[in-house]
Amino acid sequence: MIHRLTLSDVLAEHARSRPRVTAVVDGEVRLTYPELDERVTRLADALAARGVTAGDRVLWLGRNGHPVLELLLASSRLGAIFCPANWRQSTDELSFVVDDLTPKVVVWERSEAAAPLSDDGWILAGDGYEAFLSSGSPAAHRDDAADALPGDPAGARAEVPGGPLTGGPLTGGPLTGGPAHPAEPGDDTLPVLALYTAAFDGRPNAALLSSAALVAHSTALLVVRQMEDGFTFLNNGPLFHVGTMMFCLATLQIGGTNVFTPAFDAEEVCRLIDAEKVTQAFLFGQMIDAVTDANKDGKYDLTSLRFVSHSAEWDAMTTVDDSPWCRSKMGGYGQTEVGGMLTFLGLAPGAAGFAGRPSPLVQVRLLSADGSEVPSGEVGEICARGKSLFSGYFNRPELNAEKTRGGWHHTGDLGRREPDGTITFIGPRLRMIKSGNENVYPAEVERVLKTHPAVADAAVIGVPDDRWHQAVKAVVVLKGEATAEDVVEHVRTRLASYKKPRHVDFVEAIPRKGFAPDYDALDAAHGGGGYPGS
Amino acid sequence: MIHRLTLSDVLAEHARSRPRVTAVVDGEVRLTYPELDERVTRLADALAARGVTAGDRVLWLGRNGHPVLELLLASSRLGAIFCPANWRQSTDELSFVVDDLTPKVVVWERSEAAAPLSDDGWILAGDGYEAFLSSGSPAAHRDDAADALPGDPAGARAEVPGGPLTGGPLTGGPLTGGPAHPAEPGDDTLPVLALYTAAFDGRPNAALLSSAALVAHSTALLVVRQMEDGFTFLNNGPLFHVGTMMFCLATLQIGGTNVFTPAFDAEEVCRLIDAEKVTQAFLFGQMIDAVTDANKDGKYDLTSLRFVSHSAEWDAMTTVDDSPWCRSKMGGYGQTEVGGMLTFLGLAPGAAGFAGRPSPLVQVRLLSADGSEVPSGEVGEICARGKSLFSGYFNRPELNAEKTRGGWHHTGDLGRREPDGTITFIGPRLRMIKSGNENVYPAEVERVLKTHPAVADAAVIGVPDDRWHQAVKAVVVLKGEATAEDVVEHVRTRLASYKKPRHVDFVEAIPRKGFAPDYDALDAAHGGGGYPGS
Repeated sequence: MIHRLTLSDVLAEHARSRPRVTAVVDGEVRLTYPELDERVTRLADALAARGVTAGDRVLWLGRNGHPVLELLLASSRLGAIFCPANWRQSTDELSFVVDDLTPKVVVWERSEAAAPLSDDGWILAGDGYEAFLSSGSPAAHRDDAADALPGDPAGARAEVPGGPLTGGPLTGGPLTGGPAHPAEPGDDTLPVLALYTAAFDGRPNAALLSSAALVAHSTALLVVRQMEDGFTFLNNGPLFHVGTMMFCLATLQIGGTNVFTPAFDAEEVCRLIDAEKVTQAFLFGQMIDAVTDANKDGKYDLTSLRFVSHSAEWDAMTTVDDSPWCRSKMGGYGQTEVGGMLTFLGLAPGAAGFAGRPSPLVQVRLLSADGSEVPSGEVGEICARGKSLFSGYFNRPELNAEKTRGGWHHTGDLGRREPDGTITFIGPRLRMIKSGNENVYPAEVERVLKTHPAVADAAVIGVPDDRWHQAVKAVVVLKGEATAEDVVEHVRTRLASYKKPRHVDFVEAIPRKGFAPDYDALDAAHGGGGYPGS
Repeated sequence: MIHRLTLSDVLAEHARSRPRVTAVVDGEVRLTYPELDERVTRLADALAARGVTAGDRVLWLGRNGHPVLELLLASSRLGAIFCPANWRQSTDELSFVVDDLTPKVVVWERSEAAAPLSDDGWILAGDGYEAFLSSGSPAAHRDDAADALPGDPAGARAEVPGGPLTGGPLTGGPLTGGPAHPAEPGDDTLPVLALYTAAFDGRPNAALLSSAALVAHSTALLVVRQMEDGFTFLNNGPLFHVGTMMFCLATLQIGGTNVFTPAFDAEEVCRLIDAEKVTQAFLFGQMIDAVTDANKDGKYDLTSLRFVSHSAEWDAMTTVDDSPWCRSKMGGYGQTEVGGMLTFLGLAPGAAGFAGRPSPLVQVRLLSADGSEVPSGEVGEICARGKSLFSGYFNRPELNAEKTRGGWHHTGDLGRREPDGTITFIGPRLRMIKSGNENVYPAEVERVLKTHPAVADAAVIGVPDDRWHQAVKAVVVLKGEATAEDVVEHVRTRLASYKKPRHVDFVEAIPRKGFAPDYDALDAAHGGGGYPGS
């Protein structure tokens, strides 16, 4: 009992240790830790009054905002499971989530297009977000959710006058005043967060993360990012994705300030960094270019941002951070099922591997299909154990048994130990080209293609081949002069010959799903077949 | 199962992730992580062959050295509990430990004065340390230990020719080759380390720390000390004390290098910092002065040491570290039972409290005698929950129930929340002077006394007083000119009047037990009575 530490406990401590620290900024809403704690107490009471108890699911349909953090913390206090749904999904996709998760309560972002189905449905009117108590049957859930957010919710949101969430103190509503801070410590091994991911067979699965796992993962981030008191994170990436959520939670863990904005907007990001003295935001590549461009006249002071080096202009307007996380290339290897990051580039300065070294709170093994460890230098499935790992997928007992066979979480991704012990991420296990008897991993070839000075972007697929079963095809975006022969030769001199492309298509842009190439679209457009593997 | 991470697992990961990193330096012994892992495997096999299984105790009688870390890791692999005994203890004290802990195996430092009792007793001959399989009865244990280390073991050690432990690869001995890396992950909630402390009633108690607690505490240290790959820690403090052990383990956690030296020697510390490019050592106050003095001719390069600012000379020969741990004053509040540190000054820059803010992995409450939380600004017992807390004392069920009543670990120390939420450490609950109806805490008065420019050191006790029951007496060491009236006035203007000393004795030195004043000696010499309280 004395070892437990839930997310709710983390908040309860900050309310005492950091009474004057701003926990949350969201539009006009500014909450200190005691104020956040008080709102979470009342929200937990309101959810409890709607019948939410340990193990029940609470679903959020809406964009980024302080309700996401508050609902997560209130769910933690009750032992319930909170899921922020991907609001970019179609109505059909949202309906699947509602059917699959069977939430006890659905809460959605206020918008004129999302009227409640009945008066009974609103439980926190006047609070800037609204909760709907579902009628209990999965079908009703689905219809309610679909009605609540017809079409593209982002589009619906755009019609709302007044901009972002209005927030303010909780007012009115049927607050019952139950023991929201229970005397007994909550069980921190219970799932508290569900994030949909891993659509292995076309349908996504809700990865369940416990308070213990989230606290552990946050602490690993504190180590690698060297986060301190006063850290201020701008939540401009989607909170339904672990990439933003993990920094939101690490910021909570260290008692810093979470600033919310509904979605990425370069000018608004500049304004918020300046106004709130933001330490870190969720920014990559083209987003950094957009922010640089939005601030090219120096209108905003971005020097509070301590971030990765990117371009001369960017580095001049921000502070280049020297923490391991930012020192060279940001990142490492991760997935939702490991809490976010499994390995960090920052723990492997000058490493041979492309993914760095494991978090101090996990073990990694490269395993063969029979469960034995493959020797250093050979490709195996990246498997893991440790404090930050998930608790399986919601309601998927067979899949969970398969993923944790032998006491190791099987990531579904392939990797390799280099001689210095660092790990190279090879690519998804099921995204493998079989050429002759050899395995070719697209990510490896893509990485080499992108080192050619004339190549702006590249993706690799397998196409049918009479002799080799499949042949490697490169789809390439040029930024300079190069022939197909140049590109093939570039790969041939850097990788085993069987990995070099036999075909090259030049295109204007690589279709993408999020950060990853859209291999289905590439397959369709460039003659794929038998790929991602038979 | 997939969430477990024992100390043995941490080593197993480093053996893969850091194959070329030096894990251990001890005299002539240099071990990479794979070499350390291999030795620990063989040691675990040898212990298992002597019947050590889960829950059994393994006792080390000897000074600092790589055997301490190896025995701890081998015990972790077997689920056993390792205890490094205080080698400064008398034979009687050691006999108490052997009787109390009933170890399955006692391992001691080789010395000519510590001959084995029988041929059967040696299990790792030739290895620089030896393990003795006890005959099983507590009485035999006690006699064996007393015979093994007659008188002062440090004195015995001094007679050994050849200096520190000789080490080298394990050779010979009955290695059985059992499955030292079990396929099933070990239970990381089992105790793995026992450290004697907390002599509440005159006899010490063995605080049990699990792998989970030690890993959590190490990670908190990684955060606050901003430890990174390449961190090198000089274990020059005693490893039977949590203050050194906690940094040894944090260095293990991040995959750094642990350098061992038997005890503090200023010249040897200089030599090792230079030779091994040490990042941090276990140094305070007068030890830093001694090191500064030993290197006053600049013979050694100490710039690898990134440490707290101390004096102009010290700062010039080292690198002043900017991590939160070193930024202003090092430390915080801690005790063995919380894994080391519970609060950190480095998490409370510019704090009002003297002890900082809690580790990100714990909660702290100031509780009254009835278990309710005292309001901010009032004194209560410092109580805690969280990931780094101990698992109770070995074989003390009643004491354990009392210490964890209400689901909180009761530290036995008093503290106060300041308006900024930071914590002030007041002093031991049982070391309280009752003057009139007021409580006076010696530590608080001592702290103020030491801010007087003419005061070098000070301790405070209670002496019998007809009117007030007890009166405050200050025992003071001067470094300049001051009268008793000056000293009293200094306190009177800074604390409530009833806390000011009514008596002042000037002395040459304050008797100490470790870092703390020896209050029993002070009581005897300066007319104490009714103190530490009736």
